[in-house]
Amino acid sequence: MGSVQHLSERMLRAQPSAVRELLKHSKIPGMLSLAGGIPAADLFDVPGLRRAVEQALDSNDVSIFQYGLTEGDSELRSAVAGLMEQRGVPVQAEDVIITSGSQQFLEMTCKTFINEGDAVLVERPTYLAALQVFDLAGARVVSVESDHDGIRADEVERVLAKTPLKFIYVVPNFGNPTGTTLPLERRVQLVDSAHRHGTLILEDDPYGELRLSGTPLPSLFQLGKERHGTASPVLYMSSFSKTLAPGLRVGWGIGPTEFTGHLTIAKQAIDLHSSSLSQRIVLNYLSDGRLKKRLDHLREQYRLRRDALHQALLDKLGQHIELNMPDGGMFLWGRLKNGLKASELLIEAIEQKVVFVPGSAFYSENPDLFAVRFSFATITPDMAHEAADRLSRAIDQALARSRLNSVG
Amino acid sequence: MGSVQHLSERMLRAQPSAVRELLKHSKIPGMLSLAGGIPAADLFDVPGLRRAVEQALDSNDVSIFQYGLTEGDSELRSAVAGLMEQRGVPVQAEDVIITSGSQQFLEMTCKTFINEGDAVLVERPTYLAALQVFDLAGARVVSVESDHDGIRADEVERVLAKTPLKFIYVVPNFGNPTGTTLPLERRVQLVDSAHRHGTLILEDDPYGELRLSGTPLPSLFQLGKERHGTASPVLYMSSFSKTLAPGLRVGWGIGPTEFTGHLTIAKQAIDLHSSSLSQRIVLNYLSDGRLKKRLDHLREQYRLRRDALHQALLDKLGQHIELNMPDGGMFLWGRLKNGLKASELLIEAIEQKVVFVPGSAFYSENPDLFAVRFSFATITPDMAHEAADRLSRAIDQALARSRLNSVG
Repeated sequence: MGSVQHLSERMLRAQPSAVRELLKHSKIPGMLSLAGGIPAADLFDVPGLRRAVEQALDSNDVSIFQYGLTEGDSELRSAVAGLMEQRGVPVQAEDVIITSGSQQFLEMTCKTFINEGDAVLVERPTYLAALQVFDLAGARVVSVESDHDGIRADEVERVLAKTPLKFIYVVPNFGNPTGTTLPLERRVQLVDSAHRHGTLILEDDPYGELRLSGTPLPSLFQLGKERHGTASPVLYMSSFSKTLAPGLRVGWGIGPTEFTGHLTIAKQAIDLHSSSLSQRIVLNYLSDGRLKKRLDHLREQYRLRRDALHQALLDKLGQHIELNMPDGGMFLWGRLKNGLKASELLIEAIEQKVVFVPGSAFYSENPDLFAVRFSFATITPDMAHEAADRLSRAIDQALARSRLNSVG
Repeated sequence: MGSVQHLSERMLRAQPSAVRELLKHSKIPGMLSLAGGIPAADLFDVPGLRRAVEQALDSNDVSIFQYGLTEGDSELRSAVAGLMEQRGVPVQAEDVIITSGSQQFLEMTCKTFINEGDAVLVERPTYLAALQVFDLAGARVVSVESDHDGIRADEVERVLAKTPLKFIYVVPNFGNPTGTTLPLERRVQLVDSAHRHGTLILEDDPYGELRLSGTPLPSLFQLGKERHGTASPVLYMSSFSKTLAPGLRVGWGIGPTEFTGHLTIAKQAIDLHSSSLSQRIVLNYLSDGRLKKRLDHLREQYRLRRDALHQALLDKLGQHIELNMPDGGMFLWGRLKNGLKASELLIEAIEQKVVFVPGSAFYSENPDLFAVRFSFATITPDMAHEAADRLSRAIDQALARSRLNSVG
């Protein structure tokens, strides 16, 4: 068959993820990977997960193997509503939709709201996989600059004043890739701007529970409800991937009640429902009361890893790079200040058996070619020095090569 | 927020599934349900599934809880390639994409090939959830009459001769809802027509392993490869939902090699990857060599159920209804011949505590108002008589009411 003639226009525009290609290198034996957005497997609560699985088996309830409801298991929806209340926002269990990872809620939201060519606003840089979903959904992506405090709410207001937007996509807590935290004042501005202009906000919060320092801030979802009640413009999505186990593929989304039915129709088309067994495992884990202790431990360990990698990179590479210090999540974000492009450095880094993600991957347009993302989640304090040493050698090599090239 | 202004045009057209609404009745205590397309939970191989889960836990391999590859676990892809070879078609493991149920491959296919307004051909009637996916993807659905031998290949050729189609969607083995089997001659005709006109075929085969009588026929996928080699136009999808456990949400799709990368990009946007744990459970089950015995047992029991329900309905309702006798799958398909509409009968049936699905739900246009679908999968031979009795009483009530109405 002639191939290209069959493909949809969207697919013809789509490119395989650069990060995915890079992750292939991270599987090479001996490679130290600062590249993946992958939680630390050595910190999984395997005994707790095992117990939750065994409880599912021992219940003799065959519904763990049977088709389930598209919206999700009703007990799990209640348990998630309970979690949301702990996060400061009471919600009805009926408003919670269980998703196959929070990635899926992005897709459901696009199916529900996006017509070909509709504009979606994102911060610059932003979560790569979100950009890919928006592109494939035929959305027109408009990006607004973010600074060390996240997305510029004043810039959003400026865009809203002249461009009709379908929704604003924002990761307010320790976002991927920059790790920044959106201050309260900007949160309020964003919610009020969106409400005033009749635009939706899609709040992506996979990392909110991974706060490692500083004081928790209310979600946009909470502010929307508090300030605008049922007229809140905010849809909220989160996941058990970063807190419990990504391999189970269990996340959730909550929108204004009026959209729950439509979002459910969208999910029905995508996969009918999420794994019944995975949902039961998460429910058992939550019912067991293990989550709080688990999160305390995870935060403690991630804090050690963040601090160790940050310090090691500053010690070894400080003269070559500016680095942020995020209050949570999994990522350090930096910028090379020695004239090296991140992609040039990466080539040498792979030679030195260390990988990271060039920041350019996270822009829909006009990428910053000098930006770099380092994940600290899977790098123990012991490994941090070795990673920094290898990066330091890679920088030396890359600088030597670039001098050679400019001479040659 | 004003709601409708936000929704996409596709979502504004979408209607909640009638079957879904009906299934709410099937949860009422005491209700006998011939409605769901749900495999028999009492026939699940719980000990075998349990063993597969325990093996996953005992392996101490944390990758069951970690992110996985979008295309699926490489060992499972190999195992599925092995299954395909048993089904008569050698395929490369690299061409197999693991999906979250085969429903998801429909969505991936639409994302990969469909532009708004592209035409997709289906048989009349056809699988409801496929119609919903095509509608939501913005496809224009063209339907072609099917008879007691399934889709009319001559009619497909007639449509192909004048209308450019993106693909032809067909369920050749015991399809939902009609249970018909496409004869070899039509299979060959379909594959050759599609190849000649440069149109793809999407072959959906969830029930192929549930052949209860007659002789297995080669898949369109096999015929495509045999007759046209690498120029075969057929994409194939199947699932472990009807053979093993739908709640795990593990299916697979295979397309011409040139599309594997694009289909993977589509899946990446939808849910990143399918549950790692679910995939490992299926892999362990297959490695344990239990599938053959499991399928033998399932076929034996489904054959008993099919025969018992068919006979009971003929005995009690024979004068009111024409009924097919499918060679496999989960469904009897019939047509009321007493002037009653299926929806009128359903209202009385619910009163009598028995539910089924009116056939009209399975048409994209010009529904047959007298058609009915009865699932035999979850009805044991003991229950078959009771179900038929209740339906018989419902018919009497409905006829009495309709006479009353015509008098009044």
